[in-house]
Amino acid sequence: MRKRYSFAKFLGAAGIGAAAPLLAAEGMWLPSQAPALQSQLREAGLAIPPERLADLHAAPMGAIASLGGCSASFVSADGLVATNHHCVLGSIQFNASPERNLLRDGFLARTRAEELPAAPGTRVLVIDSLDDVTAAMLAGITPKLTGAARIRALEANRKAIVAACEVEPGIRCEVRSYFGGSQYWRQKMLEIRDVRLVHAPAESIGNFGGEVDNWQWPRHTGDYSFYRAYVGPDGRPAAPSPANRPYRPRAHLKIAREDLKDGDFVLIAGFPGATERFRTAAETEGWYGRIYPRQQRMLADYSALIARETQTEADRIAYASIKAGADNFAKKIAGQLEVANRFGLVELKRAREAALADWARRPANRRIHGRALVNFDGLTGEALAADEARLVNATLNRAQLLSAARTLYRWANEQQKPDTEREPGFQERDRQQLIDRLSLIDRRFVARIDRAILMQALAETATLPAAQRNTALEAKIAELGLDRLYSGTRLGDRAERLAWLDRPVAEFIASDDPFIQVAVAAYAQDMAAEGRRKELDGRLDAARVAWMGAARAHAASEGRLLYPDANGSLRFTFGHVRGRQTRDGEAWTAFTTAAGILAKDTGKDPFNSPPALLAALKEGKWGALGSQALGTLPVNFLSTTDITNGNSGSAVMNAKGELVGLAFDGTLEGMLSDWWFDEATTRTIAVDARYMRFVIGRVDGATELLREMGAD
Amino acid sequence: MRKRYSFAKFLGAAGIGAAAPLLAAEGMWLPSQAPALQSQLREAGLAIPPERLADLHAAPMGAIASLGGCSASFVSADGLVATNHHCVLGSIQFNASPERNLLRDGFLARTRAEELPAAPGTRVLVIDSLDDVTAAMLAGITPKLTGAARIRALEANRKAIVAACEVEPGIRCEVRSYFGGSQYWRQKMLEIRDVRLVHAPAESIGNFGGEVDNWQWPRHTGDYSFYRAYVGPDGRPAAPSPANRPYRPRAHLKIAREDLKDGDFVLIAGFPGATERFRTAAETEGWYGRIYPRQQRMLADYSALIARETQTEADRIAYASIKAGADNFAKKIAGQLEVANRFGLVELKRAREAALADWARRPANRRIHGRALVNFDGLTGEALAADEARLVNATLNRAQLLSAARTLYRWANEQQKPDTEREPGFQERDRQQLIDRLSLIDRRFVARIDRAILMQALAETATLPAAQRNTALEAKIAELGLDRLYSGTRLGDRAERLAWLDRPVAEFIASDDPFIQVAVAAYAQDMAAEGRRKELDGRLDAARVAWMGAARAHAASEGRLLYPDANGSLRFTFGHVRGRQTRDGEAWTAFTTAAGILAKDTGKDPFNSPPALLAALKEGKWGALGSQALGTLPVNFLSTTDITNGNSGSAVMNAKGELVGLAFDGTLEGMLSDWWFDEATTRTIAVDARYMRFVIGRVDGATELLREMGAD
Repeated sequence: MRKRYSFAKFLGAAGIGAAAPLLAAEGMWLPSQAPALQSQLREAGLAIPPERLADLHAAPMGAIASLGGCSASFVSADGLVATNHHCVLGSIQFNASPERNLLRDGFLARTRAEELPAAPGTRVLVIDSLDDVTAAMLAGITPKLTGAARIRALEANRKAIVAACEVEPGIRCEVRSYFGGSQYWRQKMLEIRDVRLVHAPAESIGNFGGEVDNWQWPRHTGDYSFYRAYVGPDGRPAAPSPANRPYRPRAHLKIAREDLKDGDFVLIAGFPGATERFRTAAETEGWYGRIYPRQQRMLADYSALIARETQTEADRIAYASIKAGADNFAKKIAGQLEVANRFGLVELKRAREAALADWARRPANRRIHGRALVNFDGLTGEALAADEARLVNATLNRAQLLSAARTLYRWANEQQKPDTEREPGFQERDRQQLIDRLSLIDRRFVARIDRAILMQALAETATLPAAQRNTALEAKIAELGLDRLYSGTRLGDRAERLAWLDRPVAEFIASDDPFIQVAVAAYAQDMAAEGRRKELDGRLDAARVAWMGAARAHAASEGRLLYPDANGSLRFTFGHVRGRQTRDGEAWTAFTTAAGILAKDTGKDPFNSPPALLAALKEGKWGALGSQALGTLPVNFLSTTDITNGNSGSAVMNAKGELVGLAFDGTLEGMLSDWWFDEATTRTIAVDARYMRFVIGRVDGATELLREMGAD
Repeated sequence: MRKRYSFAKFLGAAGIGAAAPLLAAEGMWLPSQAPALQSQLREAGLAIPPERLADLHAAPMGAIASLGGCSASFVSADGLVATNHHCVLGSIQFNASPERNLLRDGFLARTRAEELPAAPGTRVLVIDSLDDVTAAMLAGITPKLTGAARIRALEANRKAIVAACEVEPGIRCEVRSYFGGSQYWRQKMLEIRDVRLVHAPAESIGNFGGEVDNWQWPRHTGDYSFYRAYVGPDGRPAAPSPANRPYRPRAHLKIAREDLKDGDFVLIAGFPGATERFRTAAETEGWYGRIYPRQQRMLADYSALIARETQTEADRIAYASIKAGADNFAKKIAGQLEVANRFGLVELKRAREAALADWARRPANRRIHGRALVNFDGLTGEALAADEARLVNATLNRAQLLSAARTLYRWANEQQKPDTEREPGFQERDRQQLIDRLSLIDRRFVARIDRAILMQALAETATLPAAQRNTALEAKIAELGLDRLYSGTRLGDRAERLAWLDRPVAEFIASDDPFIQVAVAAYAQDMAAEGRRKELDGRLDAARVAWMGAARAHAASEGRLLYPDANGSLRFTFGHVRGRQTRDGEAWTAFTTAAGILAKDTGKDPFNSPPALLAALKEGKWGALGSQALGTLPVNFLSTTDITNGNSGSAVMNAKGELVGLAFDGTLEGMLSDWWFDEATTRTIAVDARYMRFVIGRVDGATELLREMGAD
């Protein structure tokens, strides 16, 4: 059942190569690749013209939006945005209090006036264009540059491209690297900043099964929620204001009316965050042998500490989203480690590389590609050590006031340079996001817990060799002592925190705020470490471009169309609604149904459905929402599609490009897919739109919402 | 998914009632019912004329044979008999020794001369005719008879019918009760006594998964073996002799060549032992509330004691078959109790009975059937107490020398009467079977273990009220003491044991053999208990006939065709190859395959496949034995058919009546089916004939055997 060499698709176009058996599932394709894939898309079942997927201004792709970390889609002409419950968790929590427990009870704005502000920093990003800027990015990049110089040159080119793009207010541009730095595309987006919470089901629906069911099948989670995007009276993105009006998207998705069945074609569009399918065998060995096990353990420690320290409901609400994130990531890494071991991931990578190395050694290819693999492998040991140190040092940023102080001092230092020379993330264009991040702390911070988190992080970094950690930071904290750090700081106050954003470096140096003092003390070593990292990154980038050059030339010689690793940019994936064999004689079926919720419900968290849901399910009047094929209400379904973190909330569409569900999870067995896609085991879990409609209409009585979506 | 009232089939014939939706799975049909079922059989997929199933002299039914407790079928013109490995376990064990471990290694006779004798008592029974003898059986039976008189009259009628039937040597006739004594059919059979072991795979194939996998799916057991039936030179059954020649059956099954696939029609024919589907709600409550739990516990204690006491490989071989039987039965009862509770068996029975009671109370039916249910329920308490006492007292018979002594003394007493007046089982026609049973003890007896078993049984019976146990037996054992019982007896010697078969009562009374003394002491109370039991049985019989009369009249009024409870006589059942949903989102697939054996194999018992099998599976050259639909070698498969204990070894046939497998098990979830058939959960597990052929040919190299079956 295992594919031997499957990180690529065969190109079906005549003359390039013979069409291989259709394996629709693998591939996170760029919209611009749709025309080249048209025969595969048609054969798989797409009923609309495949080239439509390259059109970012029309449905379905024109309806897809990013929330930055999650995916979403417009489902009405009035800017209604569908995404996952777990993607709006921060906004629910931002509006929740012990008196008004929106997390537990869910939320429904019966009128637009009742809509609540999303958490600070929430953005709806709408793609305007996606353009190849490889030539502009690689201008002046020569093999002779040092690593650090190469990175500086790439950063300068990137900033110039972005600056030239962001001429209108409300437009955000970014340039991402594809195929390991071989290509660069510029994503131009409308950045909508007035985002409001419209509807979220009760946590016991939206997160039914909780951590127990996370990454599991059979699944019965109603993981959906709705935002609405607002723009200023001029139709352009604007700061939140009562004067704003709903954004009218260029396109929105229709809710499917036809029965979605086992075997049906499905299309998913969204913003997958990161995959590592082009990583080398040596890199894979380092991550799975050393780095992931440590990261997993650090996340588990972090989650356990939060669980131990959160004592009140208010504590729990404050840290719910942070803990959920840590749990989710820890479970994902544990799953990845387990399946990688089971599948022999390193051996698979080695076998793939052996084929590539054979090809690269052939006389015809040797001159250009002969050294590509060897050169890259020569850097891997150094890169792995740096990656591990980076992850360990990053645990210090879990301490929110320390992280804020370091960010603020860096900001002050960067402010001394012209804007175009500042470090990415510290330019004027990043100011609002920084303000939002600094504001968010208020809702997610308890000093006692933050202190415990800092202590844990210091213990962790202490395990690193001195050269890899910030000894000046440690010395300053030791000098001040944790008690003074937390009792003496005024950064816990938002106004004070934000005020530092406009203060000069000298004021930081003169400050008696203990966290500011730590940030100042840490700065020189932080900068030195960054310099070393950039030098290494530059050398790695050059080597990886050469490696990918070999891999791409090899694929082209065999008529294979490659797709780039996920990098947070817009992609589509297609496949079919389909269960899978779990072991010989046993299988997962493609759908779960209403009966499964009733069977799982224990009345206790995380299997405590609201009484209204239980009553409606027991009544069993599905009407138009019942699947004809199943004879009951579908709840979640599996499909053979290729998604990863960042795809959460992605629209799942049928052959006509109509919404049939929202992707929200994968399964443990599919966790290999970030590094290696296995067709037999990888499945996407989505919440069926019919279950969403059932809960929205019959349980939450949000008939107006259904009417707006044309799904009443 | 649950049927409300499903112990019957709707009759599809026009004019009798409208055809209900086809539920082929339920029903253990008499061959004579095939014509009435022809539309259902055709619709389900049977490709041969349905009326052929009523012909006991032609294939497929003419090829079906009984082993008495197991089912079998002829698969060659030379008397080759296919059945389950677990059905020939006794014969394997009979021929095994620590030096020649046939159980572990399997056995193959490469020539007919190498075939081994089956265990004493092994019979192949071939049906000659099946005739309705209700009128003759009920002659002279009136409501005025006492219970005991009714039983005596029935026994006398039965003996007369049997005697008139068994006129030729080698013919065995039996009269069984159907529909709770409402009908009687006479089964006339050829009793073949020279049975030889031809082939058995290694235990780690034939019992792969052992107790761990028993009653489980996914399953990967090669539960098949072969006997050959021999008759005398005149073609009639004869005692084992080198002069005998292979029996030429009237019909034998062909091995299917077509791909058996998910959804295909299958037919199973065999000898289901007993079901209780017509038991009343009150009886069900007594059995599931009290009797089964106790029986299950007594079996578990028995098995644990054997496990504890068997210390050497010789001990293990001696008690392997006994322990396997106890384990199997204990697991089955535990499963029955669990599923009965889950399904609410008592409530299902109550609901069914309510419908019947409603019907019986209607003015039109009241006169004949109005009291039937109430009268029967009035006897239930007494019957349940007697059943429990009988089961508890039966544990004494596990002590093999005690059981032999009691049987021998009963035999001597019965010998004093004319043959036709003797108790069934003690007539001259039963002599050979008795000799075989008494002989078998040699291979299955270790005095130290037998003694421990007797102690356990005495502790068990001591819990009964004095009136329900044999206090004279207990007193005698106490007087003699267990030490003297085992050291003083000569019954451990087979010749001595068999010699008692022809000794008169007086010699028993005068004997100083301690076990004989116990048997003599116990006799009077044994006879008194039997008399009481017969009186009760007679009254129960009369009441059940009335109850069944109501049930049958009720069914007839609704156009439903009833099938009788299983009673060890020839039946067929039909359905389809099909998996089932196990919980929402998960399912069992219809087939297991070669990959599953490799995945399960640990190298340790019970998952220790022979190296030759593992090598052949890894090689993966299936040739014609690979399923086209699955692309690999099928091992076991599920079907929606209706079987129970006694069906083990039954031929599973395709639409053409060709052999596609051998039934060998059900699943725990289907354990309800002895008392209530649930279509959604009940499945039969069969070993696929292609896996049998693969192991026979590629692993055991028995190409001659395949050639004989026409399956090479």
